[in-house]
Amino acid sequence: MMSLDYLFRPKSIAIIGASRNREKVGNVIFRNVSSTFRGKVYPVNNKSEIIEGVQSFKSIKDIQDDVDVAIISVPRESVSQVMEEAGEKGVKSAIVITSGFREVGEEGEKLERELTNTAKKYGIRFLGPNTMGLLTPDYNGTFAFADVKRGEIALVVQSGGIGAYMLNWAQKSRTGISFLVSLGNQTDIKEFEVIDYLSKDPETKAIFVYIEGVSDGERFLDLIPEATIRKPVIFIKGGATAQSSEAVKTHTGSLAGSYDVFKAAIRTVGGIFVENLKDFLNLSKLVNSSEPIRDQILVITNSGGHGVLTSDAISRAGLSLVKIPERLNGELRKVLPPQSLPRNPLDLSGDAGRERYLNALKIVSDLDCTKLVVVQSLPFISCTEVSKVLLNFKGKGIVGVTMGYDEDAASRILESASIPVFSFPEEAVNAVSKLVRKPSPRKKVRVPQPVNSAQELIRGKTALSDYEGLKLMELYGIRTPKWGIANNYEEAQRLADSIGYPVVMKISTDQPVHKTELKGVYMNVEKDMVKEVFTDLTKISKRVMVQEQLTGLEAYVGGLRDPVFGHTVLVGVGGIYVEVLKSVSYGIAPVYEDEALEMIKESKILDMIRSRKRGYDEGSVIRTVSNVSRLVLDLNVKEMDINPLIVNERGAFAVDVRVTF
Amino acid sequence: MMSLDYLFRPKSIAIIGASRNREKVGNVIFRNVSSTFRGKVYPVNNKSEIIEGVQSFKSIKDIQDDVDVAIISVPRESVSQVMEEAGEKGVKSAIVITSGFREVGEEGEKLERELTNTAKKYGIRFLGPNTMGLLTPDYNGTFAFADVKRGEIALVVQSGGIGAYMLNWAQKSRTGISFLVSLGNQTDIKEFEVIDYLSKDPETKAIFVYIEGVSDGERFLDLIPEATIRKPVIFIKGGATAQSSEAVKTHTGSLAGSYDVFKAAIRTVGGIFVENLKDFLNLSKLVNSSEPIRDQILVITNSGGHGVLTSDAISRAGLSLVKIPERLNGELRKVLPPQSLPRNPLDLSGDAGRERYLNALKIVSDLDCTKLVVVQSLPFISCTEVSKVLLNFKGKGIVGVTMGYDEDAASRILESASIPVFSFPEEAVNAVSKLVRKPSPRKKVRVPQPVNSAQELIRGKTALSDYEGLKLMELYGIRTPKWGIANNYEEAQRLADSIGYPVVMKISTDQPVHKTELKGVYMNVEKDMVKEVFTDLTKISKRVMVQEQLTGLEAYVGGLRDPVFGHTVLVGVGGIYVEVLKSVSYGIAPVYEDEALEMIKESKILDMIRSRKRGYDEGSVIRTVSNVSRLVLDLNVKEMDINPLIVNERGAFAVDVRVTF
Repeated sequence: MMSLDYLFRPKSIAIIGASRNREKVGNVIFRNVSSTFRGKVYPVNNKSEIIEGVQSFKSIKDIQDDVDVAIISVPRESVSQVMEEAGEKGVKSAIVITSGFREVGEEGEKLERELTNTAKKYGIRFLGPNTMGLLTPDYNGTFAFADVKRGEIALVVQSGGIGAYMLNWAQKSRTGISFLVSLGNQTDIKEFEVIDYLSKDPETKAIFVYIEGVSDGERFLDLIPEATIRKPVIFIKGGATAQSSEAVKTHTGSLAGSYDVFKAAIRTVGGIFVENLKDFLNLSKLVNSSEPIRDQILVITNSGGHGVLTSDAISRAGLSLVKIPERLNGELRKVLPPQSLPRNPLDLSGDAGRERYLNALKIVSDLDCTKLVVVQSLPFISCTEVSKVLLNFKGKGIVGVTMGYDEDAASRILESASIPVFSFPEEAVNAVSKLVRKPSPRKKVRVPQPVNSAQELIRGKTALSDYEGLKLMELYGIRTPKWGIANNYEEAQRLADSIGYPVVMKISTDQPVHKTELKGVYMNVEKDMVKEVFTDLTKISKRVMVQEQLTGLEAYVGGLRDPVFGHTVLVGVGGIYVEVLKSVSYGIAPVYEDEALEMIKESKILDMIRSRKRGYDEGSVIRTVSNVSRLVLDLNVKEMDINPLIVNERGAFAVDVRVTF
Repeated sequence: MMSLDYLFRPKSIAIIGASRNREKVGNVIFRNVSSTFRGKVYPVNNKSEIIEGVQSFKSIKDIQDDVDVAIISVPRESVSQVMEEAGEKGVKSAIVITSGFREVGEEGEKLERELTNTAKKYGIRFLGPNTMGLLTPDYNGTFAFADVKRGEIALVVQSGGIGAYMLNWAQKSRTGISFLVSLGNQTDIKEFEVIDYLSKDPETKAIFVYIEGVSDGERFLDLIPEATIRKPVIFIKGGATAQSSEAVKTHTGSLAGSYDVFKAAIRTVGGIFVENLKDFLNLSKLVNSSEPIRDQILVITNSGGHGVLTSDAISRAGLSLVKIPERLNGELRKVLPPQSLPRNPLDLSGDAGRERYLNALKIVSDLDCTKLVVVQSLPFISCTEVSKVLLNFKGKGIVGVTMGYDEDAASRILESASIPVFSFPEEAVNAVSKLVRKPSPRKKVRVPQPVNSAQELIRGKTALSDYEGLKLMELYGIRTPKWGIANNYEEAQRLADSIGYPVVMKISTDQPVHKTELKGVYMNVEKDMVKEVFTDLTKISKRVMVQEQLTGLEAYVGGLRDPVFGHTVLVGVGGIYVEVLKSVSYGIAPVYEDEALEMIKESKILDMIRSRKRGYDEGSVIRTVSNVSRLVLDLNVKEMDINPLIVNERGAFAVDVRVTF
């Protein structure tokens, strides 16, 4: 893979399809590049016009110097031809602005393949097609507005509109950006290499990614964990639901994968997942500042009501109100009015003025916690005054919340000093929560090592029978209840005797079926009932399974092969609760024990186990999840589930297993 | 209860404790009243000073005219004396600004009682103490900023800081307000009468209530349903959690009730519940406009990415994307660029200009749906331009979302025309969802009609034994499995024989205990096991219950006496899931069948029943919830639970019941 340096740090740029008409994309881009780039800029136009006072070239081949980047904005039918000429010229990289390719159907798809082949022939790396372009610290190669403040946040977007929005925001909030990469159809350059490249860029402090579909899950899982170690990478996914997946398909032609699996993948690679643009903007305020952010929070306010709402939000987000050390009580009492107590939230009272804020902050400033300072403009103090006080405590973990008539002016004061500031306590709290809970990145090493006997068991099959499923569990160290197959009554009776009563008797089938719905399951079968039950069951199926009857908690463990991220495991509440409560957690295979523990926490299985207070074996569930994750990888399972997995004090037991390949 | 008219629509106002010092509350209020009120204003100050150029009175008794409202801002020790003088003068109502009463402890509580007695003696209705004051269309009797635009939203707040914030917001957003009522300690005038009063006020279109604790649940449940029929009443509750309840206690001295019961109460009275200030502000935009808002939504945008995120949000909120009628396809195709399809979200494409927005809106304007117009400022169009286009469609269900560099200017254009406008699609969608899902108000008629035999059963008891609990169920039409009590083995055997095998045998106790934890429950007991099991159980308890063993879904139904809202019922997933999954829904007793249906939906019981596809009896669960709600009312139950309530195709059966009084 050739480096993206030519594209991101070029010495010369040609704009092919540069136009005289100021309403045209080809003109806007030429002006944007010209006004920002210090290297050489060449307009190319087959009519050889004078564009913005510069004589254009009829063909890129007419340019004498080397060209590092060709920005292409010509009708889609001509794109491949233009790429051919660029190749002949020796151009290193391109940005294909033109749209009308894969995203609009078959004809476009054909043109896109043609384009790809041409670029490959000459080794040209290209962004797009169907991209809004690229903006770097060196040049603005987009058709969006030119005046964007340079900053330290990089934006990688799979939608031009979202890109334009982020540019506006960066400008307005004085945040600034380092790069904006509009991915377009990702025909050549993909999101994972862009993120990887930007994570190594010294002018970038954090990376924001708006994505609708990941191009290559394996590469993503491989490269991104290294990027998230270097700096925060924040993801937002468009196309969360069935309704909007329709919109995605027509948008950039990529199929949205499962939202839940995507979320699991982001956690695996150590990314921060946000649900909407607003949450991202709020998070970026923290990322963009140098204030140390902690999960222990001290709230300081001049409004009791705001204090209440803030601690509600802290509690909901699972963060903590820090306990103010006893030794500070005396000092704080001197500062507070008589009716206020030195507790957290620290209510300075409605008549607090500048001095009270200043003195209280001095007393607590060295505590190692986030100081969430919520100020309501009142006749006795304004947000602006408090903002100026806060400037004295820069670097002490200050997060401001300014509320009232002058909140915007007050925000600007803090923003200029890179102290994060919000309009609502909930927004501040949620952003802090996202940041302090950033997951640790994991690199998944997928080395399928199928057990020989397992390979034999599944050879040539698209699905396992119920008893093969149980055998497979045993080969993978997953326990099962005692069981056996009976083809006649005597066998059933012998089996039941050896297992011990009561037993479960059920039909045994070659294909995964809902046995309960077929009335093919009898519980609590005692010795004297075996014959009758056997006769009943054989009306549905010749083969009957006799199984030890276990009691305990019913969990569920599943596995699937996601089209994007590959093998994934699920764990959740078992039985019918799986589908109804959707209390399920996802993990990218292989799943390590600590991840499995997080998964059984998230799906509430752990709470359930512990609430029983019977010493149910947590460890065995963890191990089962981990084993299943290896099994699905080793044997390239398409879908499987263990339901129920019965958990009790002796361990976790796979009672019913379905596997397809 | 004397009318609040004197307070809300006075002809004359005295400010007792008016001050010359511009930093003092007593001065700010005097200035605020003077500059807003057209009636007579009298400053009262025991030093008889000249205040803001006006000679003050030494005592209220020196004033010759009638005084409708006395605003009192004197040290807390003098408040009662001042109230006495006001009473002698014949003052009708008062606002007690002074703080330092119940909210600061015992001494303050004593002073508050004294104050109450004095006011009662003279029939004076008063707001506070510990209030920021009252602002009406006629006067500003608060110590907050004077310049608040008159509008149509009334604010009722139990925190001065929140009140000040809302005033700022009303001014800044050009929304304006009709009333601001700062409730303070609610010693005399309570939130329910204020809401009731404002709901009848013709200058008020909607009421916003920030509350930490409701003063009188019964009156609230009685009065508020009438208010919410008249206009939207929106509630936000401070003190959601254990952590912040601490803050509430020190704040206005009221104990926060259970958050879940509060939410249920708001649903019952037909209020709209929001979780934070931001959600309220967003909702107020819709409430303040005259656009018809529907749950069917058409999204129109010039950014595919924004379209995707918007439909994600619509789907998450449970709203629907409306289907564009086929007949409009032809017209829309003429307006759209070739690559765009006439579907919802309607993507006008990034190069859309003013004309395309205008033409598309003309085509769809008569559809009966909410038109969510999301515009991204791009070089081809600005938010401002689209806002101007939208002015032509006022009244057609327009909701704007403006994104980009000129979004604030664009917002102002729409705000001036009272067209709701938001900064993010999610915010617009969530506000629409809150409004279109406003619950129907219910007035709970609580007429306890205890069954005679039930009264006998519970007479003199603080808790029922297990079998008394089952008997009670039967008296209230709630089915139980067949059961009986055995004091010796022979009785047990006889019972089991008549019930039919297998049976459940368990210890029978006088007090509610966790029988399973005591190992006092045997399931699947067959005929030959009865003796052995009986012997085992009598090691724990002399009395043994024999019960029919049922299979089915385990639900939970509970009841409690909430200190604020009285009897409340709960329904949820049964067994250990109750505590872990917290899949529980609350309802204020009595619960009607349609409410019970909503509750079993919300708690997911209904999904569970239906997913089983076995014809389990939904109706019997609904009826059980309703019956339990009558039972807890009739018998003044303190706490009770049925766990499990086993639901199968034959009905719903209370298996284990605990009741305390």
